[in-house]
Amino acid sequence: MAAFDRPVRLAELAAMLGREVEGDAGTIVRGVAALDRAGPGDLAFVRSAQYRGQLADSRAAAVIVPDGVEPGDRPSIRSPNPALDFARAARHIVGSPAPAAGVSAEARVDASAKVDVTASVAAGAVVGAGAVVGARSVVHGGAVLYRDVQVGADCGIHGGAVLREGTWLGDRVVVQPGAVLGGDGFGFVTDERGERVRMPHLGRVVIEDDVEIGANTTIDRGLLGETRIRRGAKIDNLVQIAHNCDVGERAIIVAQAGLSGSTRVGAGAIFMAQAGSAGHLEVGEGAFVGARAGLHKDVAPGARVFGAPALEDRAWHRAVSALPRLPDVLRRLRAVERALGLRGGRSAGRDEPDEGGR
Amino acid sequence: MAAFDRPVRLAELAAMLGREVEGDAGTIVRGVAALDRAGPGDLAFVRSAQYRGQLADSRAAAVIVPDGVEPGDRPSIRSPNPALDFARAARHIVGSPAPAAGVSAEARVDASAKVDVTASVAAGAVVGAGAVVGARSVVHGGAVLYRDVQVGADCGIHGGAVLREGTWLGDRVVVQPGAVLGGDGFGFVTDERGERVRMPHLGRVVIEDDVEIGANTTIDRGLLGETRIRRGAKIDNLVQIAHNCDVGERAIIVAQAGLSGSTRVGAGAIFMAQAGSAGHLEVGEGAFVGARAGLHKDVAPGARVFGAPALEDRAWHRAVSALPRLPDVLRRLRAVERALGLRGGRSAGRDEPDEGGR
Amino acid sequence: MAAFDRPVRLAELAAMLGREVEGDAGTIVRGVAALDRAGPGDLAFVRSAQYRGQLADSRAAAVIVPDGVEPGDRPSIRSPNPALDFARAARHIVGSPAPAAGVSAEARVDASAKVDVTASVAAGAVVGAGAVVGARSVVHGGAVLYRDVQVGADCGIHGGAVLREGTWLGDRVVVQPGAVLGGDGFGFVTDERGERVRMPHLGRVVIEDDVEIGANTTIDRGLLGETRIRRGAKIDNLVQIAHNCDVGERAIIVAQAGLSGSTRVGAGAIFMAQAGSAGHLEVGEGAFVGARAGLHKDVAPGARVFGAPALEDRAWHRAVSALPRLPDVLRRLRAVERALGLRGGRSAGRDEPDEGGR
Repeated sequence: MAAFDRPVRLAELAAMLGREVEGDAGTIVRGVAALDRAGPGDLAFVRSAQYRGQLADSRAAAVIVPDGVEPGDRPSIRSPNPALDFARAARHIVGSPAPAAGVSAEARVDASAKVDVTASVAAGAVVGAGAVVGARSVVHGGAVLYRDVQVGADCGIHGGAVLREGTWLGDRVVVQPGAVLGGDGFGFVTDERGERVRMPHLGRVVIEDDVEIGANTTIDRGLLGETRIRRGAKIDNLVQIAHNCDVGERAIIVAQAGLSGSTRVGAGAIFMAQAGSAGHLEVGEGAFVGARAGLHKDVAPGARVFGAPALEDRAWHRAVSALPRLPDVLRRLRAVERALGLRGGRSAGRDEPDEGGR
Repeated sequence: MAAFDRPVRLAELAAMLGREVEGDAGTIVRGVAALDRAGPGDLAFVRSAQYRGQLADSRAAAVIVPDGVEPGDRPSIRSPNPALDFARAARHIVGSPAPAAGVSAEARVDASAKVDVTASVAAGAVVGAGAVVGARSVVHGGAVLYRDVQVGADCGIHGGAVLREGTWLGDRVVVQPGAVLGGDGFGFVTDERGERVRMPHLGRVVIEDDVEIGANTTIDRGLLGETRIRRGAKIDNLVQIAHNCDVGERAIIVAQAGLSGSTRVGAGAIFMAQAGSAGHLEVGEGAFVGARAGLHKDVAPGARVFGAPALEDRAWHRAVSALPRLPDVLRRLRAVERALGLRGGRSAGRDEPDEGGR
Repeated sequence: MAAFDRPVRLAELAAMLGREVEGDAGTIVRGVAALDRAGPGDLAFVRSAQYRGQLADSRAAAVIVPDGVEPGDRPSIRSPNPALDFARAARHIVGSPAPAAGVSAEARVDASAKVDVTASVAAGAVVGAGAVVGARSVVHGGAVLYRDVQVGADCGIHGGAVLREGTWLGDRVVVQPGAVLGGDGFGFVTDERGERVRMPHLGRVVIEDDVEIGANTTIDRGLLGETRIRRGAKIDNLVQIAHNCDVGERAIIVAQAGLSGSTRVGAGAIFMAQAGSAGHLEVGEGAFVGARAGLHKDVAPGARVFGAPALEDRAWHRAVSALPRLPDVLRRLRAVERALGLRGGRSAGRDEPDEGGR
């Protein structure tokens, strides 16, 4: 990896994190690593007591540990949330070489675009007419910004990402490679002859501060209004977000999930992988939509739903755990009917072949 | 948005649409908008009587209304299909600045490619040897046309789209950003040692007139023959269409759906989002495949299927609505068996723990 | 198609394949085609006895046939695996014009990158600082290699593919258009205020020899370690592979399937289309995961699982074939309860409306 590490004293890290050092506060760490791969200069972390064994065997110079885990002689920082503090420490220790500010001679930037002097536009990037790139933002090679795109400060737009005309990004937005923002929404009207006539999509995509968009994810522009991803939401790879959706603050949409048009996702709600939503639904604040769930009606705030069509947590778990016993139910029901002499008088033959086959 | 609007008299719009004006035919509209966002110069439309309330509050200068909705004093055009007429009117009122014809000095066009003088190839586009770009077609920055690609007239190929060698497009085809046409199909043969040997894919992709391909959708080339998308079909984002599929005229394939190899989709058929089809199936003309349905056998013309494995409409709805009651069925069945003294004599213990746990 | 064919004697093909010719070994073939589309100079193959009728009608000059199929007068090569031998023969007969070696003047290759003199980097490709491209590898227009990417020998990196920093490829790897390797994994920690804080992803993606990655597929880098795709695995289009997954040798992952973080897939295992796996699971060697299956626990070596949540083969087939009969079970159970006088004394009314509606 081309990332560089720099030596940091444990005391400095603890101060930054607002935590205490146990053991030698002068210990120097030069990199970060997983517990089982760490070398003698590395900082590692212990997610939970489950990893005690790995801790004992680790060569890490220092560790961040949760309550209830004893680091022994090893210098450590105790934390109520070791993963969070490790993330912060890693950002402090490990840097990425920032690309040089400026527009590469091999980038193609329209004369009417405005690129901040502290921003970086790499070789092979395309920036269209009237586009704006804010302070310290990086547009990587192969990224394409159509006309009138606006990118705020401290953003990263990766290669192969395409931002169609008028797309608006706040600050600290990351767009992973190949993501497409502002494609024409999938809206057609059927005419008298059965042909599909496109609805012109005149709206745009708005991405608020601190949002991250995954690789090859697609977010369509609004039909007449906006498709909006709100502050701090995180969207994984290969997600589809249709025209006029509104994804709430801090919401999480995991890989390959899909939101049909005008879906509203509340703040902090979570869509797990490969879930889907029919159009015009409201998913309440803090709701949890399980992997592969298929929504066909609104989800209440804080609710947990699973399955397709989605059911409430407990109802779904009971139903799917009972499902494998359905063949046995059929057999037993038939025995009951026989005992009661009920089968003779009805259309019993209808399911005879199936049951006989078991 | 960089789209521009131009002032149009209501009489002119009505004449174009073949409809009548109610109220002041001299009313001038300068843009289009949703009913609830329209300003005093905008044309809006009323989809159905459900939106009567929004109509009353709207600031729109004029509206297109369906039968049974009274526009009051507001100038209006009455239409049997307001969405369709709005789409047509919007196209008339709102234009996009057409990119200047010609090949950008910063595009990379092979010397043997033929680009029509009225076509536009933007900075950062790549056009390979022997490729052809027809009249008035636009190849946006970041689009890549491999050798021998043929693009008809009035097409739009967006940034990040890749058309592999020999891909053929008719007229008025739109390829949204990041779509990949003509990738090698997923065909391998297992050899004596268990290795997967690639079947060379020598076929191509053919996209007929008036087709639209969504962002980051993938359509693989035929193994030896063609993968064909027929006239007027519309394909949404992140759809997978495998080698040798044949998608019928005016068919609709919604986001994240997937067709396995050699699937044949009849004219006007609809695949809803995240649906999938096993290979070599035939989906009849006008069939409807519900969201998340999984096909494992043919679908008759006009049939409506749901679920995975897919069932016919009514059978599926009855089954899934009964499913949450299955745990209750187990409990009731056991009570019946007890009443009949049937449980003692059989392997009743087998499901005892589960039922006892509730 | 711009592929070229060259004339080959049947005897030469048979010798290469280690098979025998039946009929005229001097027959010359100049191309390959499907049985029903072959012309008089083409080699075709018969997959199984099912295609006997097509064989009789075919105009192919020669055919590869399985045991039990009689080619009549037509010159033929008999094979225990006609598809495999056809794949090998096709590779021999049909060539692709190899792109000229060298770096195009219109490619953007960083001065510190090392491109083998026999490799080809096309117009519109981007190769970052410190990247390495091995012998005879081809980087197509529109491909983007970030800094420190390593590409082995005889690889093909197609347009629109993005390989983020440090991605490592072995030999004979094919990356179809638009695939993204090395995107930041989807790892966030929630802080005290409910904000999602990114875990820095410092690991990388390793692709071993003979792997193929489909169009628009995404493979995220490891969090601290690696995401690894082992030798000979084949991955289809639009697949999601999350951070720290390990995909075994010769494994097959079909289109739109998704693996959550740290999934381990054993050698030769198969994930069919649109299947998904929860994180940290182990899928055993040679296991088969059916289309649309959803894994929530480990899969034993050689097991076959279906459905979501996934069940073992037989249990799943019995359950889903019984499901459509559940409404009937409800009706019959009620009749039984009535016959026994059981309904009066319990909460029978609860499901009355539903059942009454049928």
